[in-house]
Amino acid sequence: MSSHAKNSFRRRTSSVREDCLGSSHSHHHHHEKNVDSMTFVDDESDVWRAHYALDHYQHRGNLFWNAGKHKTLIQYLLIGAVGVVQAIVAYGTNLTSAHIIEYKYTQVYGRLAESSGFVDVFLAYLFFTFYQLAFAMAASLFVWIEPVSAGSGIPEVKIFLNGIDLPRVVDPKTLVCKVLGVICSVSAGLPVGKEGPMVHSGAVVANTISKHETRDDKQVRDFVTCGAAAGVCTAFSSPIGGILFALEEGASYWAPSLTWKAFSCSMVALATLYCLNTVGSAFGKVGFNRLFSFGNFVFEEESSFAVFELALFVAIGAMGGIIGAVFNDTNERITKWRLKNVNHSKKRRVLEVLVVSVLVSTVSFLLPLLWRECKALPSTEGMDTSQLELRGSLVAFTCADDEYNEVASLILTDPGDAIRQLFHLHKHVFGSGALMLFFLSYISLAVVTYGIGVPSGLFVPSLLSGAAFGRLFGNMASAYFPQLAFSNTYSLIGAAAVLGGMARMTISLTVILLECIGNGQYVLPLMLTLMTAKTVGSFWNSDLYHIHIHFKKGVNFLQAELESVSRHHKLNAGHIMSDDVIFVRPVEKVSVVYDILKSSNHSNFPVVDDGLLYGTIGRNALCTLLKQRAYGKPIVVDEYSVTEHRDHRNHDSVRVHNYVTVEGGGGEDDEGEKFLPLTQWEVIEQSYPKYPSIGDVRISYADKDCMLDLRPFTNCAPISVRESASVTRTYEIFRSLGCRFLPVTNLHNQIVGTITRKDLTPDALAEKMIGKGARKAAH
Amino acid sequence: MSSHAKNSFRRRTSSVREDCLGSSHSHHHHHEKNVDSMTFVDDESDVWRAHYALDHYQHRGNLFWNAGKHKTLIQYLLIGAVGVVQAIVAYGTNLTSAHIIEYKYTQVYGRLAESSGFVDVFLAYLFFTFYQLAFAMAASLFVWIEPVSAGSGIPEVKIFLNGIDLPRVVDPKTLVCKVLGVICSVSAGLPVGKEGPMVHSGAVVANTISKHETRDDKQVRDFVTCGAAAGVCTAFSSPIGGILFALEEGASYWAPSLTWKAFSCSMVALATLYCLNTVGSAFGKVGFNRLFSFGNFVFEEESSFAVFELALFVAIGAMGGIIGAVFNDTNERITKWRLKNVNHSKKRRVLEVLVVSVLVSTVSFLLPLLWRECKALPSTEGMDTSQLELRGSLVAFTCADDEYNEVASLILTDPGDAIRQLFHLHKHVFGSGALMLFFLSYISLAVVTYGIGVPSGLFVPSLLSGAAFGRLFGNMASAYFPQLAFSNTYSLIGAAAVLGGMARMTISLTVILLECIGNGQYVLPLMLTLMTAKTVGSFWNSDLYHIHIHFKKGVNFLQAELESVSRHHKLNAGHIMSDDVIFVRPVEKVSVVYDILKSSNHSNFPVVDDGLLYGTIGRNALCTLLKQRAYGKPIVVDEYSVTEHRDHRNHDSVRVHNYVTVEGGGGEDDEGEKFLPLTQWEVIEQSYPKYPSIGDVRISYADKDCMLDLRPFTNCAPISVRESASVTRTYEIFRSLGCRFLPVTNLHNQIVGTITRKDLTPDALAEKMIGKGARKAAH
Repeated sequence: MSSHAKNSFRRRTSSVREDCLGSSHSHHHHHEKNVDSMTFVDDESDVWRAHYALDHYQHRGNLFWNAGKHKTLIQYLLIGAVGVVQAIVAYGTNLTSAHIIEYKYTQVYGRLAESSGFVDVFLAYLFFTFYQLAFAMAASLFVWIEPVSAGSGIPEVKIFLNGIDLPRVVDPKTLVCKVLGVICSVSAGLPVGKEGPMVHSGAVVANTISKHETRDDKQVRDFVTCGAAAGVCTAFSSPIGGILFALEEGASYWAPSLTWKAFSCSMVALATLYCLNTVGSAFGKVGFNRLFSFGNFVFEEESSFAVFELALFVAIGAMGGIIGAVFNDTNERITKWRLKNVNHSKKRRVLEVLVVSVLVSTVSFLLPLLWRECKALPSTEGMDTSQLELRGSLVAFTCADDEYNEVASLILTDPGDAIRQLFHLHKHVFGSGALMLFFLSYISLAVVTYGIGVPSGLFVPSLLSGAAFGRLFGNMASAYFPQLAFSNTYSLIGAAAVLGGMARMTISLTVILLECIGNGQYVLPLMLTLMTAKTVGSFWNSDLYHIHIHFKKGVNFLQAELESVSRHHKLNAGHIMSDDVIFVRPVEKVSVVYDILKSSNHSNFPVVDDGLLYGTIGRNALCTLLKQRAYGKPIVVDEYSVTEHRDHRNHDSVRVHNYVTVEGGGGEDDEGEKFLPLTQWEVIEQSYPKYPSIGDVRISYADKDCMLDLRPFTNCAPISVRESASVTRTYEIFRSLGCRFLPVTNLHNQIVGTITRKDLTPDALAEKMIGKGARKAAH
Repeated sequence: MSSHAKNSFRRRTSSVREDCLGSSHSHHHHHEKNVDSMTFVDDESDVWRAHYALDHYQHRGNLFWNAGKHKTLIQYLLIGAVGVVQAIVAYGTNLTSAHIIEYKYTQVYGRLAESSGFVDVFLAYLFFTFYQLAFAMAASLFVWIEPVSAGSGIPEVKIFLNGIDLPRVVDPKTLVCKVLGVICSVSAGLPVGKEGPMVHSGAVVANTISKHETRDDKQVRDFVTCGAAAGVCTAFSSPIGGILFALEEGASYWAPSLTWKAFSCSMVALATLYCLNTVGSAFGKVGFNRLFSFGNFVFEEESSFAVFELALFVAIGAMGGIIGAVFNDTNERITKWRLKNVNHSKKRRVLEVLVVSVLVSTVSFLLPLLWRECKALPSTEGMDTSQLELRGSLVAFTCADDEYNEVASLILTDPGDAIRQLFHLHKHVFGSGALMLFFLSYISLAVVTYGIGVPSGLFVPSLLSGAAFGRLFGNMASAYFPQLAFSNTYSLIGAAAVLGGMARMTISLTVILLECIGNGQYVLPLMLTLMTAKTVGSFWNSDLYHIHIHFKKGVNFLQAELESVSRHHKLNAGHIMSDDVIFVRPVEKVSVVYDILKSSNHSNFPVVDDGLLYGTIGRNALCTLLKQRAYGKPIVVDEYSVTEHRDHRNHDSVRVHNYVTVEGGGGEDDEGEKFLPLTQWEVIEQSYPKYPSIGDVRISYADKDCMLDLRPFTNCAPISVRESASVTRTYEIFRSLGCRFLPVTNLHNQIVGTITRKDLTPDALAEKMIGKGARKAAH
């Protein structure tokens, strides 16, 4: 509007012109670090449209069965396959690790008895430590082979669903290392779970299977969403929870058809688990404890809660939020130290795992020894089958056969058993002292362990320490108020509170826990606890997954919604864009295209016609076209007439060889003479997802002056944003349409800048805001 | 590109020019019928931005507590209020109708006994019929007062969440009529439920409460989503189901913050219900059957299912899909007849209700009489408390005290009791004959009843007839395969199948039913059944809600995704847009604005500057500006210099009186001289949602030549689409950004047409596709 705006526009335009001559170097090399984004927007170039129209025409079928229905059927079949494969993977993981753990404890307990002397105990300790050390070492070796398989995998899946193509995250090799690694790390007795890795595994399975059907980022993303849902489903036998997890975490790219796909995938995965679980009983009745679960919570008079106890649940939620925040903060500090001192060397990572393994083994073994107290087993009166089974899993350690060691029953056992004991056994089974000792030591070990070089989930450690904390709270509260619900109800609430305080999920976690305990009556307590934990925890820091996402270099993670700070500043698209635009023209010289691709690493380029935004074209298409030598000598003399000519609708004045004229195509009312580009969409698409890079392209001297007609390969209806649009709207367009690249235009549709993922991260926005303030202050 | 395109562009431009002179009349009068759309996109005009910046500045607070947090707190408090109010409404509705129904049956059963003669029975019949008739009449009178309160209300809520402002749907008056009406219609013994109306009630409560805080369509929509979630939650005590219902039905406008809001709203509503339910026991223990529920399904050995039974569940799902499709089709035909012959007259609507009421009463009373058979009450052995209670609710009718009439126990009782009996009592309690008789007659009555002039939900009738159907199936199947699960499991599956076949929901219905029965072990059977029912039913027709939405005139409902047919045709934005653009210029003559508003009923206008799309402005803003007389005499002579001038950045050459110059605002680097428009955003916003219409505006003769400076009120970064964009992309942009109006531009950012909701309906797209084909064929 004012003279300033005019100047600034001219300045930008002139910088654009410079770029066009190839003289400008990209200033963003240091930002990108080879982490590529995915695009969830259709290409919509002429060749793309022609490809899909032809595909549809060839498979149009009859009235009842057409190409669309056929495609849908194939997709659902593949999605079903994802469910089946993931269920088998999860079942195998579970079975294998259970057997390894069982063997370990049988051996250890066999060496220990009431009368065992120091040597026996020491031998048992040595066996225990070396057995665990061996598996820890194996786990760390799998991470050596494939570093991306370390950790829970949920941050990686979130990054992928956010539209960032982190290398090797969804490769089959990662799957193998992750699954074998997590079997080892769980068997090694580390305070880690296998639930996060199962989610990652589901994502990789889905990605691998999807590659047979599609070459489209958007559809791959849908598959991976389904796979993540199936992963949660198989980890907790929680199908609805899985769908909601994929929704809550992968949100903002969600559509009804995707809901149904995730629903089907979870359903098939669960059905497969049912079948696998009942193979032994000839596919007979489906019982309680056959699936991975925390055992059914039966809602009895004793464990039911009064309305005023809801206030206590809120209090536990708040404490869980604080515990979670402290956990996250501590782990963040440890991870910072680790990044600086350990992670740069693969050897150091393995060494760290070995040290942590010995530490965990020693603590797990020493604590019960120090505790010493033997307690008589609870009476079997009034116990149902599952409680009897749990009673049997209480650990005697050095006690007599009809006694048990409280601390050993929690720490020297399968974590799943420990959770079930805390959830279901009578309140007198675990005393406050043992619970306190276990809670403090176990959560400390967990905070150190998360982030070492082994595949490791976070759900089970959080749930277990939370269950101990909740039961402790319940024991202490019922000492003063004997009319309260049994402490196993408090144990459940505590587990939810600590997990919620760490992961900050609400709806998906509620459903996962509900489906695990199989009793809908706990929905309100769980909702209250999780909402409180999330709210309280969020006062201090963000959830652990985001903390770890933030540590990944070059990852520009976009939250579903813009932070409110950026909303309230008068920040426009024009302020945040990068204004060194590197563009190509609709008909471009081969040498120019080559130089541009060589000198920059942008993955999308605006196609600009006399300053106007004509469309956009991807780096992949350009590289493929150069590699295919899809260019020809111009047959008109003034090769640059396109850009000099004032009437932009007359591109036909330049005609190059890679177009074949089709005679008589289209009538009077049609778009006139039609050309058939020599390079079809199939050729560009065939190398998905590994496109040729510019390094693979050799241009002969003679080719340099040839012309490349980009018009059929250009998306001529680019999603763009006006420079005066607010940053809120820009973010909304970018995020909800799944863009990778957003050209910024002015009133005349002249390109003035571009916006990519990196311009929209909280850090980049904050920098721009400060910059704007500083500029204002300077005057 | 070709010469044709150029011509067509010129033609459009010239038609645009004509519109500008007010000579063109809108051709879309017959389409719009006064049903307005809502806009979910921020206004982003200068005054809007100034308003929000000021608001933020004034309430910026300290570091810890700022305006954003304050606003969030207020919002959550109001959302909590929605939950509390809706819970009270639902509780009151339930309590009142339960008492009325109880009184009715006490009276009727009192007159009937084993030895009762014909006169007694006839008197009981008369009492029964007139009692029910009176309530049916009352219900229909509430609909007379407020016609929009008829039916289930779910279609209306869906329409609202879709962004269509159907008149009076969310007015408090509708709430009163709906709630009182549904109490009457349920008491009148009609085969209707109160669940749908509860969802509508939640939406109205939310809308009413939101009006105290916000004047923004987007925020109101979020509130209504939460209200709908709370409505489902209070109807079924299913909080998660409520959130998912709001998600599955209101999809595509969903964000994490909205999930948390809906979560909180449901949570508060459920907590309120808990409190209300335990008032009697001094807020003591929360028991089983105190809430609205179908009773807890206890997963015993007998009712548990084997893996191969999953195939039977799929078969029931398929049958449920067919039953649902037949139900929907029949109801569609009846509704068509009704629209033609009944609904145009209020008297006829009441008369129809009375006729249906007598029919229902007579059938309900005659069937048990005809059945006659008396069966001994089942033995109390092995029954738990809730089963004993259900045994007590079996109806003796004309039988002895220790006997019961099977048909009467299903049809002459509260539908909730009937469902619980079918779900929980032993399989021998209901024989196949009675179940068949009940199923056929009840579902026939239900299909006739839905659509008459009373508030009426569909969940309970579908569940009840489905439960009877499923139990029938279970009885018959177990005659051949005695090892099958008990028929009450089949009853549950049947209920899910029929409801799923009618409503075609998957994930939300699974969760609602799971939460109702309180047992997570049924998740896989329910998923399989619902997915099958949906898939099978969708081969024939769409769900009943959409059928009824389609009957509403002038409602342009946009599905979340475009149908695949339109995807595969080469249909562009340029083909589907309406090309008679009526626009205003940035500085416009008062008389022109007045004439445009008078002669068209568009609700948004492009602001066009020399053919270029400068921005958009709403009808409401224009009307308010005219009403506020926010214009002044131009102080430069050539008033049309704006449109003649080539440099569009020099608007300042026209200066009008409604700008106040602020001296010294902004430095060198700023956007130059600042003006303060006299009319602020508050003035435009204050009359939300009922803005002044052009009929309220009087323009004096002297004012006609004044100039209106629209620039500060124009959204200068309009979301627009290129004419070459595919219809898929256009739809995606329109729908996922929540637009109401989409200007279509060409390469030069010249406006060539506009797209509104009505251009994107399946019918409109099909018409355009046929038109395009015909035009091609003609050449």
